[in-house]
Amino acid sequence: MSIQEIESTIRDIPDFPKKGIIFKDITPLLQSREIFAEVIEKLCEPYRENIPDYIVAVESRGFIFGSPMALSLGCGIVPVRKKGKLPYKTFEETYDLEYGTATVEMHVDALKPSDRVVVVDDLLATGGTAAAAVKLIERFSAEILGLEFLIELCFLKGRKALEKYRVSSLIKVD
Amino acid sequence: MSIQEIESTIRDIPDFPKKGIIFKDITPLLQSREIFAEVIEKLCEPYRENIPDYIVAVESRGFIFGSPMALSLGCGIVPVRKKGKLPYKTFEETYDLEYGTATVEMHVDALKPSDRVVVVDDLLATGGTAAAAVKLIERFSAEILGLEFLIELCFLKGRKALEKYRVSSLIKVD
Repeated sequence: MSIQEIESTIRDIPDFPKKGIIFKDITPLLQSREIFAEVIEKLCEPYRENIPDYIVAVESRGFIFGSPMALSLGCGIVPVRKKGKLPYKTFEETYDLEYGTATVEMHVDALKPSDRVVVVDDLLATGGTAAAAVKLIERFSAEILGLEFLIELCFLKGRKALEKYRVSSLIKVD
Repeated sequence: MSIQEIESTIRDIPDFPKKGIIFKDITPLLQSREIFAEVIEKLCEPYRENIPDYIVAVESRGFIFGSPMALSLGCGIVPVRKKGKLPYKTFEETYDLEYGTATVEMHVDALKPSDRVVVVDDLLATGGTAAAAVKLIERFSAEILGLEFLIELCFLKGRKALEKYRVSSLIKVD
């Protein structure tokens, strides 16, 4: 299956969540069992010979891709969640949005220094959330094998915020 | 692996999200690749001979279990999300909380009347969210094969809101 076939299942929704933004709607992709399975396979492929200890999955669409990757690779899952959702003691990272800030958290016992992880989210846009996830993981001194995204909005140059690491995306939007 | 072994990985967090509530923290369960894989296998088991067309996964911890179930069963995923998250036209259902209300949505093109689905979430508490998901699915006239939960807080009697359907849970908290 080609990347074009996968890309053809993503629906552009103009002016969502606000005027001028073209939102990439992945729900038609998720409805196709063949495309969904192929996407998970392609996202896992770089790690088949180098299985991580954990997929670090970013709330909430990152769970949709990260969790089946963990099942397929045979590793555990560690969630990165928005502030206030994780019930135990947490580390937190705050980052800038266009207007205001956002905060993400991980449990303080989520990782050990010897752990090797892959960060997963559906979308790489400005890279703010992913960079915050990376900072959280660095606090544990865990090793980041790479960051995997379904879609990359290349014009937002999110990779620049992640340049110390291997970053890959299946679908690149110029 | 026994249910007791799975249950032993769930951590009780007192007074979260507020005084008097004992929150069931599933993050240690997710950290164990063996336990996570076994949980997905057990949740899928009732449907191995009767594969649904879709897992209807409820945001956001429902994604963590529903999405790998879809991969394992070989079916698609349809998300139920909190109001304002889905970008296309939606149906919505509002339900009562202890204080106030909540609204969940599905895309209007998420299901067809011939579709057979399984609803998945991590927790069955009062059943409000699950009953709202059921009402949304009923609007499509799709068939609900069952509802699967990791944890059921039996003392909240959430099953009563779902009594037309097959409801099962791996871990029952009295």
